[in-house]
Amino acid sequence: MSLKDDALALHRRFRGKIATAVKVPLRNQRDLVLAYTPGVAEVSREIARNPESVFDYTSKWNTIAVVTDGSRVLGLGNIGAAAALPVMEGKAALFKAFGDVDAVPLCLSTQDAEEIIAIVKAVSPSFGGINLEDIETPKVLEIKERLINELDIPVFHDDGDGTAVVALAGLLNALKVVDKRLDEVSITIAGAGSAGYEIARILHRVGARKILVVDSRGIIHRGRKEGMNRFKEALAQITNPDNIAGGLGEALRGADVFIGVSGVPNLLSAEMIKSMAEDPIVFALTNPDPEILPDAARKAGARVVATGSSQFPNQANNLLVFPGFFRGLLDSRAKKVTDEMKVAAAGAIAGLVKKGELDVDHILPRAVDKKIARRVAAVVRASVKKQG
Amino acid sequence: MSLKDDALALHRRFRGKIATAVKVPLRNQRDLVLAYTPGVAEVSREIARNPESVFDYTSKWNTIAVVTDGSRVLGLGNIGAAAALPVMEGKAALFKAFGDVDAVPLCLSTQDAEEIIAIVKAVSPSFGGINLEDIETPKVLEIKERLINELDIPVFHDDGDGTAVVALAGLLNALKVVDKRLDEVSITIAGAGSAGYEIARILHRVGARKILVVDSRGIIHRGRKEGMNRFKEALAQITNPDNIAGGLGEALRGADVFIGVSGVPNLLSAEMIKSMAEDPIVFALTNPDPEILPDAARKAGARVVATGSSQFPNQANNLLVFPGFFRGLLDSRAKKVTDEMKVAAAGAIAGLVKKGELDVDHILPRAVDKKIARRVAAVVRASVKKQG
Repeated sequence: MSLKDDALALHRRFRGKIATAVKVPLRNQRDLVLAYTPGVAEVSREIARNPESVFDYTSKWNTIAVVTDGSRVLGLGNIGAAAALPVMEGKAALFKAFGDVDAVPLCLSTQDAEEIIAIVKAVSPSFGGINLEDIETPKVLEIKERLINELDIPVFHDDGDGTAVVALAGLLNALKVVDKRLDEVSITIAGAGSAGYEIARILHRVGARKILVVDSRGIIHRGRKEGMNRFKEALAQITNPDNIAGGLGEALRGADVFIGVSGVPNLLSAEMIKSMAEDPIVFALTNPDPEILPDAARKAGARVVATGSSQFPNQANNLLVFPGFFRGLLDSRAKKVTDEMKVAAAGAIAGLVKKGELDVDHILPRAVDKKIARRVAAVVRASVKKQG
Repeated sequence: MSLKDDALALHRRFRGKIATAVKVPLRNQRDLVLAYTPGVAEVSREIARNPESVFDYTSKWNTIAVVTDGSRVLGLGNIGAAAALPVMEGKAALFKAFGDVDAVPLCLSTQDAEEIIAIVKAVSPSFGGINLEDIETPKVLEIKERLINELDIPVFHDDGDGTAVVALAGLLNALKVVDKRLDEVSITIAGAGSAGYEIARILHRVGARKILVVDSRGIIHRGRKEGMNRFKEALAQITNPDNIAGGLGEALRGADVFIGVSGVPNLLSAEMIKSMAEDPIVFALTNPDPEILPDAARKAGARVVATGSSQFPNQANNLLVFPGFFRGLLDSRAKKVTDEMKVAAAGAIAGLVKKGELDVDHILPRAVDKKIARRVAAVVRASVKKQG
């Protein structure tokens, strides 16, 4: 059976991946009286009196919404809300299985940013956090910014924030393998969508100073006119210190690190890798088909290669991040996601590869290991505590 | 311990009543590949190609949203979205425990009808049905009407539809006890909110012809000017054949049946019951404090008395209806709730009281009996099948 047949068969057999579970006994009349009317009225009264107690008396403390408009689902493009539902259910199932986070898919039939913002705000009383998913850029960055400002529960965007954390984690270990320093290396990022934006931001945040971001119009630089938006303008301020222009070829010449989140399969040629500095690091993260296949990259001289796929060594999988990250946010009742938390999570993930195990083919831990989420949650909690 | 203490303790101990359950295996890399990327992309593609298959490949087929704006929660009034959450979680837990229906509470921070309609429509791709709950009247009737017309999944309003079904079920059996016929009795309904509106409609639907509906302004009649809305106008057309005016006292004189859904404790006096016809039936359904206490009603001559409370015999509890009703809707993928389904459900519930058990204190089955939902689901499915 093919992957396609197996995947369809699994989904048809279980008819979806998540369900509702009941946490309280509902066996007899007394149970009903306490969990529902008239007893529940006392709980409602208490919350009306003391709004913060909703975190003590309801599942809000542990429940997040996984929100999409279906405008950019996996590599499939704008396939809409219904077709996005199996992906959101999968995400919700992973949140539960790996982070014990209760998650509800909300696939929206509108793709208007203002409407999405209004809807998420309107449903937020039921939730302790929001995970934005598979919404096209730059719209999703606008939505995230507004929701962060207007909600008092944390808003995470896995395609951006999660990818940035896992890329940083992988890079920290890859640099150890090649014995280079983050504050000295030249890093070229292909793609200026959510992932490229957040990766550039977090790398700058931890001290990388020679970053170039390249999109389909070339290297992002101050003064560029075509294909810009305010998020790319922000990138132009913190990257490209020499303010150079050009294409991916120019951007890679002499670079130490390539990070591909371009959405373009086979973007990277052997020649480009050959033009990079000694011991090049190549993260070809586009799914399902990377910017270059690992064999070809290694043949062209790449020393460390990572992809988004489980078929190859060094899978940069967001599953390393999101369940534990939200576990930590919810446990500490954080109101915002901060850069400090993301840096801490990346450090924790990198640290889970033991010294003796770290090599060119083992820069990241295996995603199916459930202790990863516990570790990520712990450092997120510690980060919240430290920041007060 | 008091009811209040016990209810608060239960909710604090479990920190909410519902959670997410995972239906598929997620133990190894292969499981992840099938349930999430890259396998899930094949499922998304299939749904994009064939939209109806979302019912086969996702949990949509079994998942409903329990939607409120917190504007009229239990007897507590407009306490808002957060304070409504324990009630919606309780409802979701009962849907699951009694009907195996997966249910998600959505407590909305807006109370604007147009916004609520837009939000429910926008989130509907994730759901196989909508249950409206604890929204004030007549707004909720407007919302329901619009959603029924604009959505292709069933919309149920438990406060209206559910109450009407259980009232009809109880009345069918009460009439057997007193040996009267539905098409001959005089019925006075106190309350013209959602429950009063739907009860009057369903009773008219099954052949009752002498119905009076009384609200705080008196008997609803054609030509009345004060306190009307288009739902009360509709009631004026199907009730009150002699088009009389007056108060509850006038409405009850000579009546065979009183159905109280007024929200006013102690509305009904002993004198009013004494003015009714022989063997009066009194359903004092307002919670938690009924229009008259059963002892007082019986002392005044009421032959059959029902309330909404589990403290007394003949509890008219919507739990008899909603889990099985939605089970039937979802099983048959019905697009609308029809009067035929509601009548069938009422008949099934009434029929669950066996002939030898039926008496003044046993007109309805006990709500904790889980076979009730199976029976209600079966007749709803049969009704869908019959209507095509």
